[in-house]
Amino acid sequence: MSGSTFGKLFQLTTFGESHGAALGGIIQGCPPNVTLDFEQIQAVLNRRRPGQSALVSPRNEGDVVEFLSGIYHGKTTGTPIGFILRNHDQRPEDYEQLNTAYRPSHADFTYDKKYGIRDPRGGGRSSARETVCRVVAGAIAEQLLAHVGITFSTYVDQIGSCRFNSTDFFSMAHIDQSLVRCPDSITTEQMVDLIEQTRAQGNTLGGAIRGVIHGVPAGLGEPVFDKLHAELGKALLSINAVKGVEFGSGFDAIEMTGSMHNDSFTEDFNTTTNHSGGIQGGISNGMPITYRLAFKPVATIMQTQTTINSEGERISLAPRGRHDVCVVPRAVPIVQAMAALVLLDAYLLNKRLSL
Amino acid sequence: MSGSTFGKLFQLTTFGESHGAALGGIIQGCPPNVTLDFEQIQAVLNRRRPGQSALVSPRNEGDVVEFLSGIYHGKTTGTPIGFILRNHDQRPEDYEQLNTAYRPSHADFTYDKKYGIRDPRGGGRSSARETVCRVVAGAIAEQLLAHVGITFSTYVDQIGSCRFNSTDFFSMAHIDQSLVRCPDSITTEQMVDLIEQTRAQGNTLGGAIRGVIHGVPAGLGEPVFDKLHAELGKALLSINAVKGVEFGSGFDAIEMTGSMHNDSFTEDFNTTTNHSGGIQGGISNGMPITYRLAFKPVATIMQTQTTINSEGERISLAPRGRHDVCVVPRAVPIVQAMAALVLLDAYLLNKRLSL
Amino acid sequence: MSGSTFGKLFQLTTFGESHGAALGGIIQGCPPNVTLDFEQIQAVLNRRRPGQSALVSPRNEGDVVEFLSGIYHGKTTGTPIGFILRNHDQRPEDYEQLNTAYRPSHADFTYDKKYGIRDPRGGGRSSARETVCRVVAGAIAEQLLAHVGITFSTYVDQIGSCRFNSTDFFSMAHIDQSLVRCPDSITTEQMVDLIEQTRAQGNTLGGAIRGVIHGVPAGLGEPVFDKLHAELGKALLSINAVKGVEFGSGFDAIEMTGSMHNDSFTEDFNTTTNHSGGIQGGISNGMPITYRLAFKPVATIMQTQTTINSEGERISLAPRGRHDVCVVPRAVPIVQAMAALVLLDAYLLNKRLSL
Amino acid sequence: MSGSTFGKLFQLTTFGESHGAALGGIIQGCPPNVTLDFEQIQAVLNRRRPGQSALVSPRNEGDVVEFLSGIYHGKTTGTPIGFILRNHDQRPEDYEQLNTAYRPSHADFTYDKKYGIRDPRGGGRSSARETVCRVVAGAIAEQLLAHVGITFSTYVDQIGSCRFNSTDFFSMAHIDQSLVRCPDSITTEQMVDLIEQTRAQGNTLGGAIRGVIHGVPAGLGEPVFDKLHAELGKALLSINAVKGVEFGSGFDAIEMTGSMHNDSFTEDFNTTTNHSGGIQGGISNGMPITYRLAFKPVATIMQTQTTINSEGERISLAPRGRHDVCVVPRAVPIVQAMAALVLLDAYLLNKRLSL
Repeated sequence: MSGSTFGKLFQLTTFGESHGAALGGIIQGCPPNVTLDFEQIQAVLNRRRPGQSALVSPRNEGDVVEFLSGIYHGKTTGTPIGFILRNHDQRPEDYEQLNTAYRPSHADFTYDKKYGIRDPRGGGRSSARETVCRVVAGAIAEQLLAHVGITFSTYVDQIGSCRFNSTDFFSMAHIDQSLVRCPDSITTEQMVDLIEQTRAQGNTLGGAIRGVIHGVPAGLGEPVFDKLHAELGKALLSINAVKGVEFGSGFDAIEMTGSMHNDSFTEDFNTTTNHSGGIQGGISNGMPITYRLAFKPVATIMQTQTTINSEGERISLAPRGRHDVCVVPRAVPIVQAMAALVLLDAYLLNKRLSL
Repeated sequence: MSGSTFGKLFQLTTFGESHGAALGGIIQGCPPNVTLDFEQIQAVLNRRRPGQSALVSPRNEGDVVEFLSGIYHGKTTGTPIGFILRNHDQRPEDYEQLNTAYRPSHADFTYDKKYGIRDPRGGGRSSARETVCRVVAGAIAEQLLAHVGITFSTYVDQIGSCRFNSTDFFSMAHIDQSLVRCPDSITTEQMVDLIEQTRAQGNTLGGAIRGVIHGVPAGLGEPVFDKLHAELGKALLSINAVKGVEFGSGFDAIEMTGSMHNDSFTEDFNTTTNHSGGIQGGISNGMPITYRLAFKPVATIMQTQTTINSEGERISLAPRGRHDVCVVPRAVPIVQAMAALVLLDAYLLNKRLSL
Repeated sequence: MSGSTFGKLFQLTTFGESHGAALGGIIQGCPPNVTLDFEQIQAVLNRRRPGQSALVSPRNEGDVVEFLSGIYHGKTTGTPIGFILRNHDQRPEDYEQLNTAYRPSHADFTYDKKYGIRDPRGGGRSSARETVCRVVAGAIAEQLLAHVGITFSTYVDQIGSCRFNSTDFFSMAHIDQSLVRCPDSITTEQMVDLIEQTRAQGNTLGGAIRGVIHGVPAGLGEPVFDKLHAELGKALLSINAVKGVEFGSGFDAIEMTGSMHNDSFTEDFNTTTNHSGGIQGGISNGMPITYRLAFKPVATIMQTQTTINSEGERISLAPRGRHDVCVVPRAVPIVQAMAALVLLDAYLLNKRLSL
Repeated sequence: MSGSTFGKLFQLTTFGESHGAALGGIIQGCPPNVTLDFEQIQAVLNRRRPGQSALVSPRNEGDVVEFLSGIYHGKTTGTPIGFILRNHDQRPEDYEQLNTAYRPSHADFTYDKKYGIRDPRGGGRSSARETVCRVVAGAIAEQLLAHVGITFSTYVDQIGSCRFNSTDFFSMAHIDQSLVRCPDSITTEQMVDLIEQTRAQGNTLGGAIRGVIHGVPAGLGEPVFDKLHAELGKALLSINAVKGVEFGSGFDAIEMTGSMHNDSFTEDFNTTTNHSGGIQGGISNGMPITYRLAFKPVATIMQTQTTINSEGERISLAPRGRHDVCVVPRAVPIVQAMAALVLLDAYLLNKRLSL
């Protein structure tokens, strides 16, 4: 009820502040007797980690996950899987000034107003560091879904004005050849240039991520409120910095007519176009699920900003610390994790329909 | 769990098929001792109803709601509010052909695949007629929120290529002066012309709705998964034909830099710009909440289409029945209802933070 | 969240006051494509109904259920099943005096304190009339469970000091041969005599109900909090007038030693005794599930009582209206309905364990 | 959904096996800005711990809780409180034989049937060691409830045939003067003698715990399904070895008449008797809440038992390891923790009734 639980049958509950002792989570409803690939889980954590390239933040946590329960001799037992990730690189002194400052377009003010108290170290619970727990659970969900043929392709579609614009499915190996996780080498080059220019200006960039999900059987999703794209939408909007989400034709549908937009059926129950984005009436139709996510530019910029503190006094905020020019490449595994959590939950929910 | 329940503390559960005996719902968690304005509820139902103008579908249900419980001498008692709306204008013969046909971009195929059975009359549960129950509960939520100063402005922002493009707050009286619920008279005229042209071609149109919410106190929303915009996003995406949603700067944020996008605080804890759309870190900040929704064009067109039936046989689908060229004007009260349900639930959830 | 929803996957939400316009409910998660036996549902409603014999209250509602959705050509469609039962025999004048009186051991006072308002007609929401909706959903659950071999025997074990004391399984036909639904004819005779004597004194009686469930496969129940007997316990304690519940050896276990109490396994994975009551560690073990429920005597007695009103003034309460001496026989179908709801939900939850 | 989450607004999710790396939990919905007394939390853990007296199991875990989040400078922040307790005294070799043995009246068989896999070390998830996490959360809940005047008295009412039989409220200091947590010194002596005799026989004992809750305001509880005693009942039945629960008059009500059982109101809205046990119609009435719990004797006895293994082969089970003759004294803090979790949740749920 308090917002740190996600999913119904495959359910993740998380805790942890950016610079507290540890972050962690509990996964309930994981099917038993499944052999987990722990190296793959760590690999996904590494994909999300800062400090992976010259382009992103140099903070280096290591992000080693320790599993505490629910696994016996490498297999899931069906009981809750508890896990933690210790914070090592805490540097709380970086944030001392922030005890009372309200950084522009951060959550300092809103957390203070909601709770009347706030852990100011690194943004506390509002930091994107929280997503590390989503990635652990999402990696497990993805392993389970691979057993039933559901696979994910998630990549950077746009940074600033540089856009790739595709709905194709690319392998993770292909995507990770790009420094910015954009499957196209020319667009990658433009994006890298743009990031470097923007870094030089002490500024930051927004962007977009495309997700394509293959192998989803027809039938997933629970109308009328828990339609598959509604659940995906909520999951994706809950990721830090996301400002919008669209499925299939998305915002382009506004200017289309019905005769253009309708997806004609073929005799094998596929459709010739996929404006529906793989979902009709809130239920998957067996076609690829496609979505696109808008990210705002990082709020922490390397420029002096004026703002207020908790007393409403005007203060000047000098740039400091370690920050990304564009988080969108690092958000790729987080986005994919959330999509996997939704799909696995929808898959399990759909299973119990018959006696 | 099965998708027809919405909300946590103020909770709506609905039932009903397009051409079944009745639709209805149960509202749990409505605060007691509140005098309801039943005429206002009926007025909102009338706003959603077909047949309101020459521009929309002539089907006329009347849509009279009967309250069955939870109200005593005009006041809520705190116990569940049960209500039903009988279907009178059923004409099931219109849909006989549809027993086995899979209409393009409808949910016929996906319902069949999910449940193995389907009520084909008027789309059954997948029909937008289901939203009549959302409107009843949303109207009650809106009345309750008015007591604490939260008010809603929801209007048509775009139909086809005609766009108004505003984030201002307009009164319902002002909005309803427009045949298409667009607060601008010039854009209205263009939209009406476009609808008439498109009707003549037997085609349909997409569009966009803008929502602006005033008076939201800072503090609503439950991070990390149940952020206020994530819950709003799910609620809005669950409405038939919605393909995308954006908050504040939305998809425009992709091409903005941090220094442009950051909302500077004023000394009274407001912000000079509102790219955040009234929400920071998933919690309301006291500024207006703004969102925009993309609707696809109506799938039922007045043109002959080829499609398949449940046997995978190719069939021809002749146009028939009664349908809108553009549902977006009629969707306005539905969108507002869903926003009200989310806000009231968030308001009540936030209240129980302290002992 | 507000207490009128029961179950997770097979989920019932109810509404309705004793003397309001109607009571009703919505069933979510009912498996699709199941042919329902509507006569059997009505038969179970008739078992619960007042006025079945000279021994019970003469109020005669008829209790006819109308299904409004989720059923097409007699089969479930997987969408929510909405249903209502109109109240015909309202006689609100019987309750006028009760507008402000707090009847001893009723919920008048507590509803007033909780909600600050109360529908006084017949006890409003606190009346056992509310259970009519449980019986409708329970009858459907029972039909579904019969398909997988799970069957129920529920009967009166004790009225006042007359006790049958059995854990055997009796057919409903056998049980209903008894005016008081006690499978033993000699105990029945004693119970009937006791009821008649007590009626003559204007007094009322408590009692106990035994439940025995056969055919439950091993594996149902969700530790650690949602153990099968914990869920059954909650379901049964939620029935009006229930003061206690015990499973297997129950309160007798207090005075037993481990060597007496342990159920030895046989080589076919059964146990020689069943002190566990069919549940070990919160999970069914394949043996019969047995429980016993204590009911307090009816609070409405045919004697003048002194009490207070909402102003705290002492008043005299004259006996009036139509009331049972002992509700326990009529509670039998309600108890069985709640047990069926729990078992079906546990069955469906257990099904989704594997991919 | 998978059974390791308890509560709605104040919500505990737990993980951990008896001999895994650690047990732990996440508390959501804890009101912010509350100073916690960590010594008191540790003191409650110590009350539950084995090895406290000559009468109970000598295993000594220490049971030190580490809080990982949700607390800043000793105060709750309103974000999830994560905590773990490492297992130090694992001795898995004690349980090697148990890999395939099905111990009588344990959950070995049912876990195997449900999940198809089982952590056999010390009973895995089915061990009462799991309750250590309940005690941590319950201690916090109790601290919060003390702020609003709700206090708990929980004590041993009966061991074997030795019964104290009281509904009085005793202080924890008074209760803990007794080796067996029975507030009466004469009964204590009898209980200690009985335990020693039974230990000499290698046998075990059942018992009963009484709970009395003072200071509960009228109005807590959410009818119709989530009545206060129904939620308490579920909470208490979910504790290992509990076979039954009763409220107020409980099973004695069976043989009472209405005129005896009815609780007469006094002019200050109290009642002269308290057969209702502080709850009427599922809502607290301001009188003390009283309940009584039946515990079966410990299943692990110091006698050789014959049983079967997972192949259905008959085997002999030699006594070994470290076990209590009677767990009821050690269950006292667990029972009180569960009662506190229910009361705090009911308190918070009742708070949001008005706008």
